[in-house]
Amino acid sequence: MRMLTVAAAQMGPIQKADSRQAVIARMIALLDEAKEKGADLVVYPELALTTFFPRWYHEDRAEADIWFEDAMPGPATQALFDRAREHGIAISFGYAEKTPDGHHFNTSILTDKSGAIVGKYRKIHLPGHAEYDPERTHQHLEKRYFEPGDLGFPVWRTLGGVLGMAICNDRRWPETYRVMGLQGVEMVLIGYNTPSVNSQRGAEGPEKRLFHNRLSVQAGAYQNATWVVAVAKAGDEDGHHMIGGSLIVDPNGEIVAEAKTEGDELLVHACDLDETAFGKSTIFDFARHRRIEHYGLITSRTGAVPPPEA
Amino acid sequence: MRMLTVAAAQMGPIQKADSRQAVIARMIALLDEAKEKGADLVVYPELALTTFFPRWYHEDRAEADIWFEDAMPGPATQALFDRAREHGIAISFGYAEKTPDGHHFNTSILTDKSGAIVGKYRKIHLPGHAEYDPERTHQHLEKRYFEPGDLGFPVWRTLGGVLGMAICNDRRWPETYRVMGLQGVEMVLIGYNTPSVNSQRGAEGPEKRLFHNRLSVQAGAYQNATWVVAVAKAGDEDGHHMIGGSLIVDPNGEIVAEAKTEGDELLVHACDLDETAFGKSTIFDFARHRRIEHYGLITSRTGAVPPPEA
Repeated sequence: MRMLTVAAAQMGPIQKADSRQAVIARMIALLDEAKEKGADLVVYPELALTTFFPRWYHEDRAEADIWFEDAMPGPATQALFDRAREHGIAISFGYAEKTPDGHHFNTSILTDKSGAIVGKYRKIHLPGHAEYDPERTHQHLEKRYFEPGDLGFPVWRTLGGVLGMAICNDRRWPETYRVMGLQGVEMVLIGYNTPSVNSQRGAEGPEKRLFHNRLSVQAGAYQNATWVVAVAKAGDEDGHHMIGGSLIVDPNGEIVAEAKTEGDELLVHACDLDETAFGKSTIFDFARHRRIEHYGLITSRTGAVPPPEA
Repeated sequence: MRMLTVAAAQMGPIQKADSRQAVIARMIALLDEAKEKGADLVVYPELALTTFFPRWYHEDRAEADIWFEDAMPGPATQALFDRAREHGIAISFGYAEKTPDGHHFNTSILTDKSGAIVGKYRKIHLPGHAEYDPERTHQHLEKRYFEPGDLGFPVWRTLGGVLGMAICNDRRWPETYRVMGLQGVEMVLIGYNTPSVNSQRGAEGPEKRLFHNRLSVQAGAYQNATWVVAVAKAGDEDGHHMIGGSLIVDPNGEIVAEAKTEGDELLVHACDLDETAFGKSTIFDFARHRRIEHYGLITSRTGAVPPPEA
């Protein structure tokens, strides 16, 4: 047994007007609760420090820089790092990253138990659009404010296992899990902010959105024999509602913990990383069963090309 | 709307002693029922003509040739093709194929409504093992009796849409659906024979096996915005039990029809192929969202390679 006790730290809504300091105080409260419950690792959502700002259109893109962090840790986040180090707990959370040379990414980081950043991931599958879209019930401007991640899907050997990260829409793409699966990933950490209604199909409400969340996460876990921890920022942000439904999923694809609220809520589960071994050595023993000679289109073709009409 | 009414023709068990003629009579009865119910296409399981013979070990591999077809249609199957043509119904089913030059494949075919074979697929993801394994509760010798498919994952423009095929274990591999999704597939036809107990983990019984079946099929449908029809051969074959649970899944990943028995049972659903358009043009618009520059390992690496130990 290789036990890693993980806490999925779901967060309730963050309003536009909320300060970074107020948010950090909530994150620290969750961290303290995780300490009491014996967690080794606390996983917070995507863009954990602010409201989900890509729903707001800034004609001047530079105005959106108020939502970004220039340094990590920085003035507001240092207290969170300090408390994590005191507790001897590793943390992972998402934030909007502005690099010294002016690039913008939707990023997440992973620390070890000393508070040192050991891994960084930049979101690859940016959903939404870049220009104001009057057809939508609400805007989803990730393609306006972020560049696609440029770090691939790395994994890190830390906390006694092999860990990877993904962010929100990445979880719907099987390529995300597979690239990490091919590096032996044992636990994938995912944060998300998911509007409760599809902005392009109003009838697709929270039930279907929660179904797709579970389906994508459970399939990724099963098909790569890995633990997956998926953590929401949930609830009503300035009139825009987001699903909760944070999940911890085992390497068989079974849900072992699921959030009951849309607020700040901690799910704690003691995960045996050795439980990944059965799937990885039998039905999903990639070396014996994968047939890469027939997968060529996956990396040679971006968009779908149907056969010609007769 | 582009309606295609599909019938999933689940089949109950076929014992070793059952003749091809008796099986074909059952398949024709299902075809007649499908005609009454207005089906355009009937989908039968993997290895529909015989018992699931890879559970039986033949030391002399050539003895297993009794389970294979030299011609399609052949003497036993001609009657099925004739009835399908009379009814004006397209069919798809699986069988063990022996080629004129002595190769062996786990194959499925698709006809048009005139009974002409328009598509052939040979199973790529062969599960199991090639040599007798005394550690298993039962044998699963697909790697002994078949070569991996050599035709890739083609799709065909037929029956008013873009159709593809996969077989049994293929459905657990996201690569299967994705390669077809990149060719604009609108309906994937899958037959399976799935033992109710994992031969390498006795505690993994029918409930978990049905869960994995649903999970894999639903995720493949959703993540490629395609209909999927998954059809079992089910029940007790000479003391070896297999799951039923045949499914028709819509392009949102929702189950629209599911088998209730483990016997011969027809599920009929009128599928609108245009329902695939929403997903393909929004969240799974591959051209806008996929990032093949980060997927390289999927086609360059077969087996998992974890990072080195510290």
